[in-house]
Amino acid sequence: MSDRGPITSAANPRIRGAIALRDRAARDAQGLTIVDGVRELRRAIDADADVSEAFVCPALIDSDEAAAVVDALRRRGVPLTDVSESVFARVAFGDRAEGVVGLVSIPPSDLDRLRVGPDALVVVLEGVEKPGNLGAVLRSADGAGVDAVIFADPRTDPYNPNVVRASLGTIFGVPIAVASGSQTRDWLAHNAIRSIAARVDAALAYTAVDMRGPTALILGAEVSGLGDAWSGPDVTSVRVPMLGVADSLNVSVTAAVLMYEARRQRDEVRGQ
Amino acid sequence: MSDRGPITSAANPRIRGAIALRDRAARDAQGLTIVDGVRELRRAIDADADVSEAFVCPALIDSDEAAAVVDALRRRGVPLTDVSESVFARVAFGDRAEGVVGLVSIPPSDLDRLRVGPDALVVVLEGVEKPGNLGAVLRSADGAGVDAVIFADPRTDPYNPNVVRASLGTIFGVPIAVASGSQTRDWLAHNAIRSIAARVDAALAYTAVDMRGPTALILGAEVSGLGDAWSGPDVTSVRVPMLGVADSLNVSVTAAVLMYEARRQRDEVRGQ
Repeated sequence: MSDRGPITSAANPRIRGAIALRDRAARDAQGLTIVDGVRELRRAIDADADVSEAFVCPALIDSDEAAAVVDALRRRGVPLTDVSESVFARVAFGDRAEGVVGLVSIPPSDLDRLRVGPDALVVVLEGVEKPGNLGAVLRSADGAGVDAVIFADPRTDPYNPNVVRASLGTIFGVPIAVASGSQTRDWLAHNAIRSIAARVDAALAYTAVDMRGPTALILGAEVSGLGDAWSGPDVTSVRVPMLGVADSLNVSVTAAVLMYEARRQRDEVRGQ
Repeated sequence: MSDRGPITSAANPRIRGAIALRDRAARDAQGLTIVDGVRELRRAIDADADVSEAFVCPALIDSDEAAAVVDALRRRGVPLTDVSESVFARVAFGDRAEGVVGLVSIPPSDLDRLRVGPDALVVVLEGVEKPGNLGAVLRSADGAGVDAVIFADPRTDPYNPNVVRASLGTIFGVPIAVASGSQTRDWLAHNAIRSIAARVDAALAYTAVDMRGPTALILGAEVSGLGDAWSGPDVTSVRVPMLGVADSLNVSVTAAVLMYEARRQRDEVRGQ
């Protein structure tokens, strides 16, 4: 099934290098991330991500989808290496024993490379840390047809393998940029994109603002909320009404509710 | 700080009994669940849940909120028992070392006890298994002011401690029932509540249906989707538009988008 291998020792330097990509320092140094899962790799391939190599455990390839992904990687000329089950258990995440992991180049994420259309819908995540939340926002952004997600002052890099996994690989289909908060505000101003910031104490309900036209939805971490820099006359603060005992929603839920409200307002084709 | 104790051995039968509540069989047998976390216990207290006893590790009570919860339990006459740090580490979940766990009576959840008002908004979860998703739906249901959440043919009981924790304790503020799918359909028909089922392949967008008046939002597990019994002339199927590479949202995100759309339609007071 593979071009090289099999590797049967987790002490193999290439296996050690792949495992190291679970740590940010190695990702930053190598410009690579590690992608677990058949669905995630399928989406990386479909999005033309640069898969630099993949490790395959033939004994664990037990679905048509998994075999198709390995085949697609091979046809693209991605170097494949067979590994034993024990090595695969080390290189793959937890219980994701789907038989294939890939190393994928982290694309450039400079904000000044980001191009969006005239009525862009952009999401800005400031200081969100939990990979599960970041991945969930990316998944919903993909679904809602968001034009870009900007990670402002991120405490977790977008290509953290846990973010990739939580996004179900949709990260490869959504344009992403990483920048500081002030760079992000400059970029939004330069592109004439108005900011709508989610705050639990905002006076205005999110349904009361016009989200058509170029719009950025700004979300902060649940605990700390958005920094003060995201206020002022050019930012409209909105809240998602909280009618029960709790005072906030999960940030990924808030993001989804806002994104789909923006989508609803933009489509506004009722009855179909 | 406590009325009894301290307990310094995890072999103590009361400690063993509390730990056993992580398993469903013990919850069913004792009619109790175990609640981790200061915020979760605060919400149980505020909702007048029946806290039968609590274990306190004084060395870990390091916030005003935690001290206030212990105080509130004491004033309610809840028996408190001090435990050592090593015992607390066994009885509390993972890293939730907030110094207090409570045992809480599981309230009756028969569907025929559930009473809802004339324009009820109800959520039905069929066969959803992941505690994180169930808790997230409860949290959003609390926020959106949903009148009740019905667990139809659940594969995870609502009072699983991981559900309670993922709900951040909002489970104590939302009326809950457990029933079979057919009992649920009978109850909805009897109460003249129309069913709107989320299906990825539905022709109708969720924004195209009227969610005012008595409405049940029906959601299935992500993988298997809703059973065929949730179709037919009395069920309207809707989809949340998927505009990217993925074909579905997380069930808790779909639920939140639908709940808040229902809320928006019901309020429809724009500009405030």
